[in-house]
Amino acid sequence: MKNKLLVFQSDFGREEGTVSQMYGVALGVDPSLRIHEITHEITPFDIWEASYRLFQTQGSWPTGTVFVSVVDPGVGSERKSVVVQTDGGHLIVTPDNGSLTHTVVKFGVIAVREIDETVNRAPDSENSHTFHGRDVYGYTGARLAAGIIDFEDVGPLIQPEKLILLPLIEPRGSSGAVNGIIDIHDVHYGNVWTNIPSIMARENGMALGDTIEVVIENDGVETYRELIPYSRSFSAVPVGGDVLYDNELLYLALSVNQGNFAEVYNIGYGSGWTISLRKNS
Amino acid sequence: MKNKLLVFQSDFGREEGTVSQMYGVALGVDPSLRIHEITHEITPFDIWEASYRLFQTQGSWPTGTVFVSVVDPGVGSERKSVVVQTDGGHLIVTPDNGSLTHTVVKFGVIAVREIDETVNRAPDSENSHTFHGRDVYGYTGARLAAGIIDFEDVGPLIQPEKLILLPLIEPRGSSGAVNGIIDIHDVHYGNVWTNIPSIMARENGMALGDTIEVVIENDGVETYRELIPYSRSFSAVPVGGDVLYDNELLYLALSVNQGNFAEVYNIGYGSGWTISLRKNS
Amino acid sequence: MKNKLLVFQSDFGREEGTVSQMYGVALGVDPSLRIHEITHEITPFDIWEASYRLFQTQGSWPTGTVFVSVVDPGVGSERKSVVVQTDGGHLIVTPDNGSLTHTVVKFGVIAVREIDETVNRAPDSENSHTFHGRDVYGYTGARLAAGIIDFEDVGPLIQPEKLILLPLIEPRGSSGAVNGIIDIHDVHYGNVWTNIPSIMARENGMALGDTIEVVIENDGVETYRELIPYSRSFSAVPVGGDVLYDNELLYLALSVNQGNFAEVYNIGYGSGWTISLRKNS
Repeated sequence: MKNKLLVFQSDFGREEGTVSQMYGVALGVDPSLRIHEITHEITPFDIWEASYRLFQTQGSWPTGTVFVSVVDPGVGSERKSVVVQTDGGHLIVTPDNGSLTHTVVKFGVIAVREIDETVNRAPDSENSHTFHGRDVYGYTGARLAAGIIDFEDVGPLIQPEKLILLPLIEPRGSSGAVNGIIDIHDVHYGNVWTNIPSIMARENGMALGDTIEVVIENDGVETYRELIPYSRSFSAVPVGGDVLYDNELLYLALSVNQGNFAEVYNIGYGSGWTISLRKNS
Repeated sequence: MKNKLLVFQSDFGREEGTVSQMYGVALGVDPSLRIHEITHEITPFDIWEASYRLFQTQGSWPTGTVFVSVVDPGVGSERKSVVVQTDGGHLIVTPDNGSLTHTVVKFGVIAVREIDETVNRAPDSENSHTFHGRDVYGYTGARLAAGIIDFEDVGPLIQPEKLILLPLIEPRGSSGAVNGIIDIHDVHYGNVWTNIPSIMARENGMALGDTIEVVIENDGVETYRELIPYSRSFSAVPVGGDVLYDNELLYLALSVNQGNFAEVYNIGYGSGWTISLRKNS
Repeated sequence: MKNKLLVFQSDFGREEGTVSQMYGVALGVDPSLRIHEITHEITPFDIWEASYRLFQTQGSWPTGTVFVSVVDPGVGSERKSVVVQTDGGHLIVTPDNGSLTHTVVKFGVIAVREIDETVNRAPDSENSHTFHGRDVYGYTGARLAAGIIDFEDVGPLIQPEKLILLPLIEPRGSSGAVNGIIDIHDVHYGNVWTNIPSIMARENGMALGDTIEVVIENDGVETYRELIPYSRSFSAVPVGGDVLYDNELLYLALSVNQGNFAEVYNIGYGSGWTISLRKNS
């Protein structure tokens, strides 16, 4: 029994009609589809962010949900279009351009198929070369979510190892210390999220209530160095105070209580932004 | 027969994945839930605005709708989590931090229950302390809207008088005059809405077509004083002209036709922003 | 069998409760309606943009979809409220203020009815004069989408020729050249879309791979003149390069690859923004 959940992500914005066209084509496939979204506000062309948002959200969605992610600066070029089946029981429809990096590394994928666009393409869209989101990804995602086609009908299997991945630096721990990267921003509040699981901090001797020395470097240049409390939530420090906390995915994160950490300290994200944390003794 | 309507409000924004996680958890409870929203663009941490938007919108939604409001600067602290049953036949799930002020004062509530988080919390979320919107409020709202639990299953009854309320100044009328506060902005257009019902203006001798002297003070300091027409709609004055009108909730409101009243005259909102209106004779 | 699709467009924004009120009233008519949107981010009062977005999106939506468009600077004045039945099998509910211009000129309408507001108005909304989007348009659209009323129940027929249209300049072709206007922006990316069908370029001897001289004038004053490639997609030119391409509706369009054409060259849209393209020989 299909739950008919179809979840879109893109960098199209909602100011104009593009997203609506994708939804219209999908609902033309089956008007009873339950369409939702991760966000359509991915920074334009930011494949890293697209990859992170897929990772961030998919665990909250029920098994059988079909995701369609369209951050596609190479639309019209030779990049592949794929559907992956994840360990968590989801399908993700996306260009093969790195958007699956976090999903592959942190969750794992069971199988990958390249979309055969000769059969999986909206009728009468052959002359359209700049809107695969509507013509291929949205249409194919809708037919998968509606149960009109199965994963096997997408196209030929390809090796998961052939998927294009962005370079990710893995977190590491040692006694009293952990290090990793700034993986993303919680953009609305300006919180800064690392790729270091809270459990790794625990295993290396750091606990809530400790004071932690935090150092952030951008391509090796020190940008931030402070001793700050590791607390249960923002409200444990005064408004305007820096705090280390476990975010909603149970990774280490940094916040200025009711302020914008990323902006105040001018912090970016990605593999060039490394962070090390050490328990103060 | 449940209508399965679940309506969210938050200050999370839609730029990233947080709202999507709440929706995913709710749809994991029941994929046939009809999820809609008030807005996710509440000014961060602005409990007054959250309170007003709940008041503004709930009357338009059918009986049985479940609202989930998450403006929660105190997440992780000791503030209570509650569900209220309103006079209008709605349920509202929210932190008890003042978000229910306008609802209590203008509509009234029938009963309040504190959420027992030992039973009303998403599975495996015990270690998450910063995302009650997903783990407690969204999950509980979804189970109420789906009919899996009833209001009685939320947790123990508490006295409605114990709810935390922000200080509200009530409007008053006298012959030819009314006064009150600037209750909120119609932010997209910059119109300024008072807490004075249009009917109170009528009862005190003011009518459409009158010229009205409007005075706005911020903590007692005069910010605006003009004689302006009281008109049926914006288009009754030239573009750029000030106008007093009855807003969509039938309260007195101020507009610059096709302009931004709040910005032009630098007006805020809340109990510190008082307004008095007097019929010009 | 109704598909129950109801698609809204407005210039209300999503920052506050107005859109939610429209949706609540519609779902009070029938909670099983499938409400979606074109956008609520139309530039305030921009009837031209509203007209274009209706044109841009309606072709992607299935037959039977009901659109409600509320860009209504004249709310409360004597402008008519209408429902049109389009050649494509859609209904559009809107103020008669020019919002239907592109729909009429590019698709055609079969029949137009003026809304009889004595019967097609939300209960108890008689004293509300500034929110026809909720009280008349949303409510009537919902009852049409739900199948509670038919097109015949809307109100009296009026002549399609009586609809208010904005002045549109039609595109023209001659040997090796085409000209028209800048019809709209793809605002999120800053691409600039013309009203010249790609097929008209083909018929006048222009082909992918050609170099084209593009001239844009604003009320007769030259704003842009360049020789640029006519390519299959953005990625055919380097990042930062200008490119002419066929947009998703198969009209000629201009882009700076991963840049913002409209902003870089300060381009507007509408009948005052003319464009001519000539094949370079």
